[in-house]
Amino acid sequence: MHRVKVRVAEDALDANATIARANREDFDRAGVSVVNLMGAPGAGKTTLLERVLADPAAAALRAGVLEGDVQGTLDADRLVHLHIPVVQLNTDGGFGGECHLDANMVRSAMPALPLDELDLLIIENVGNLVCPAEFRVGEDARIMVSSVAEGEDKPLKYPLMFRACELVIVNKIDLLGHVDFDMDRFLHHLDAVHPGVSVLLTSARSGQGIDELRTWFAGLPDRAGATV
Amino acid sequence: MHRVKVRVAEDALDANATIARANREDFDRAGVSVVNLMGAPGAGKTTLLERVLADPAAAALRAGVLEGDVQGTLDADRLVHLHIPVVQLNTDGGFGGECHLDANMVRSAMPALPLDELDLLIIENVGNLVCPAEFRVGEDARIMVSSVAEGEDKPLKYPLMFRACELVIVNKIDLLGHVDFDMDRFLHHLDAVHPGVSVLLTSARSGQGIDELRTWFAGLPDRAGATV
Repeated sequence: MHRVKVRVAEDALDANATIARANREDFDRAGVSVVNLMGAPGAGKTTLLERVLADPAAAALRAGVLEGDVQGTLDADRLVHLHIPVVQLNTDGGFGGECHLDANMVRSAMPALPLDELDLLIIENVGNLVCPAEFRVGEDARIMVSSVAEGEDKPLKYPLMFRACELVIVNKIDLLGHVDFDMDRFLHHLDAVHPGVSVLLTSARSGQGIDELRTWFAGLPDRAGATV
Repeated sequence: MHRVKVRVAEDALDANATIARANREDFDRAGVSVVNLMGAPGAGKTTLLERVLADPAAAALRAGVLEGDVQGTLDADRLVHLHIPVVQLNTDGGFGGECHLDANMVRSAMPALPLDELDLLIIENVGNLVCPAEFRVGEDARIMVSSVAEGEDKPLKYPLMFRACELVIVNKIDLLGHVDFDMDRFLHHLDAVHPGVSVLLTSARSGQGIDELRTWFAGLPDRAGATV
């Protein structure tokens, strides 16, 4: 019984990998760098995007956003004022209310994405610290956002998520001093599960780290080209 | 294709409901009230338990905890000093690293639970705002913990979770004033998805609401008896 279950799961991941590669080829052909933005519910993913993409300097990026949610358009609505292409992708309609995005869902959104007008596509995943790590969607890089309000133990509790990324953002650092969060211990735990991963400390409230995140996005095409 | 997928999902939920009923019968026979404690990663579920169960007055409850996590024993380790029965249930060993508990996983932990010594069993689910709502495990009541650091939009984004519970805890209210969280709007959103649900405001840091939560746990057998 268990063996069959694992076999089915492996087949599903194989199929996902195949579709993810097809997505990646389409993105590459259009010259679009793609980021898979992951994190827990309320980690601050959408607010970070609002801040990073609101600055006029970010306009040089020609960015678009694919918003992944179980249902509704709340996050996409929050980005409308940025006047950039934003597409909502819901996992409840036809996808069974899944707790993560997969390559096929992203593929279904392709026709709605104006890839020719973009240099950067940010795919905001469903807020979840378990399943998104298992499904690549055709991205060049993955970012894991963790808020200091969530606690310093999260890298140890959800190691796959912190391992399956090229950048870890420690967000809401304006709350340090108001929450029981020891940054040294967090970084120690992170180093235990993903040695050497890049880390950025940010606060959408104070603006700390926002310029650095924008620079990281802008440098993505060069880094992607160097590693692919 | 879609139709087949939905059919499989329905069969799985039917099987889960059957096992959940068997769990419930075992709990009832032993006279144990059972709570399914749900919430996002970092909402403060374990810390709330530490506070509620640490007080000597709580000893009258004869409580035990079943800790659900993808892997590791971090949360269970945090409760060891309470000197109550704590059993760790991991979803990675044999359960495929699932992002939620289901009735079968809880059933597998039954032999490790000293039900005869308990009046109350608290099952702390995997931190996730999507899938736990779909799987009953044999509980009398479900609690949904949401931290003010997660934002006031969560009831609208994850309505199933806020609907599938008898009590909503708004936690970390000591952070009000340091985060952008409008309590009236949160309660308005909550009322839209689950009219009339009980709400408790808590802070494990300041202790606010902890006594009330302990009283809620203590009154559970009477309420369960009244509604079943």
